[in-house]
Amino acid sequence: MTSPRPTLYHIPVCPFSQRLEILLALKGLADAVEFRVVDVTRPRDPALLRLSRGTTALPILDTPQGVLKESLVILRYLEELFPEPPVAQADPYRRAVENMLIAREGDFTSWGYRWVLNRDRARDGEFRDGMLAQYRGLEDFLTWQNPGGVFLFEDFGLAEAVFTPMFVRFHFLEYYEGFDLPAQGFDRVRRWRDACLAHPAAQQVNRERVVKLYYDYAQGYGNGALPPGRQVSSFAFEPPWPGRPWPPRDKYAAATDADLGLGG
Amino acid sequence: MTSPRPTLYHIPVCPFSQRLEILLALKGLADAVEFRVVDVTRPRDPALLRLSRGTTALPILDTPQGVLKESLVILRYLEELFPEPPVAQADPYRRAVENMLIAREGDFTSWGYRWVLNRDRARDGEFRDGMLAQYRGLEDFLTWQNPGGVFLFEDFGLAEAVFTPMFVRFHFLEYYEGFDLPAQGFDRVRRWRDACLAHPAAQQVNRERVVKLYYDYAQGYGNGALPPGRQVSSFAFEPPWPGRPWPPRDKYAAATDADLGLGG
Repeated sequence: MTSPRPTLYHIPVCPFSQRLEILLALKGLADAVEFRVVDVTRPRDPALLRLSRGTTALPILDTPQGVLKESLVILRYLEELFPEPPVAQADPYRRAVENMLIAREGDFTSWGYRWVLNRDRARDGEFRDGMLAQYRGLEDFLTWQNPGGVFLFEDFGLAEAVFTPMFVRFHFLEYYEGFDLPAQGFDRVRRWRDACLAHPAAQQVNRERVVKLYYDYAQGYGNGALPPGRQVSSFAFEPPWPGRPWPPRDKYAAATDADLGLGG
Repeated sequence: MTSPRPTLYHIPVCPFSQRLEILLALKGLADAVEFRVVDVTRPRDPALLRLSRGTTALPILDTPQGVLKESLVILRYLEELFPEPPVAQADPYRRAVENMLIAREGDFTSWGYRWVLNRDRARDGEFRDGMLAQYRGLEDFLTWQNPGGVFLFEDFGLAEAVFTPMFVRFHFLEYYEGFDLPAQGFDRVRRWRDACLAHPAAQQVNRERVVKLYYDYAQGYGNGALPPGRQVSSFAFEPPWPGRPWPPRDKYAAATDADLGLGG
């Protein structure tokens, strides 16, 4: 008798869940975990709330031994549960360098999400500067550790599995905030980001899907919450996103459900 | 020829540095790393600034292979560099549970430090509630994972090495904010905290030293910055803290250098 597969519960287009999908893709183990997407536009299933002990943050991983939370915890768990081929560095020093880079992911993620959610035009420059400072920190780190390389080490590894889903999500900054890296001073991080975005193990979600689903974030509403005047969340499963039109780039021009191809 | 010992540069009474001292004490390897305390009341040594690439955050670990930053990164590096006896959990699931608890350390630390630094009496209740919510989260986590135990697992381990220095520092909340755990509802986390504080591997810093050195934090000034009207930081090496009187418990009654036994 085989033990049941671990089950991951996640929200649609969840970057934290994509980290795990990338890790498993790199290992050739895409089927080792069952991924179940949770419709965040509906009330949370009581059975799932029991699993998570009442908290609503996702993803959570239901394993035969118990429930695990926190994407980086789950990422390291799967790396250890399925050690071959290794994605993380094995040497203690190289692993520490990898962990230093991963330690930057929280602030990096936070700046990007807070910016797209921001609805105060006066604070736009502050978020743009903060995001640039984050990229400058990555530029400095990669130049310090591997100035001539593409990835942090020789190959796409654990740090890349952590950051790539954010690079994909941050297409919403390019689309809704007109943000891109300046031409000067960001060569190393641009080389890294572009190689991460192009990697075959990281193609689970594309730019179009991010831009369409995250429209409500650009309205200041996250996690399936509905902007005023709207009936259908941009995260709704129906109608499917490929058939919807591209949203307006101007996030201050509030689109209707009909404008967004969400019915109505 | 032996390779040079790694050197850790840290500020006085630094909780992040104590995490590493505890880990090494548990391994019987207190001398494996050289600890150098940096006087934060003086301008930073240019040689140290070169090592850290211009950033002033401490601790940093200078190893024969390169410089490492971030206490949790350094902690895991030392655990892997000196694997025997193990302090972290070995089984992937148990290690993930340990990492889930460790993932709470950032918010826990932040609430305690922001509270002692706060100088707005109107916000006192907000910080007290926030700190209680942190302890409630730990209570819930420990009750979930090991309701009848003392530590997270059988023994004082990696999670305990991470949290214990904060329990020691948070004597400043007891002293300056009158904070302690309520009698009801916090039995599990109290048992954990008290056993952590009493552990023989975690006696590097005592309550008196924390209360005396962190006085300037209670005035709203961290990392060796001087409160107005003062000439000598509470973090100064001289005069030595054991000979200084206990500071006033009322943090809004600003003490002078002379009151604090700092000369003047």
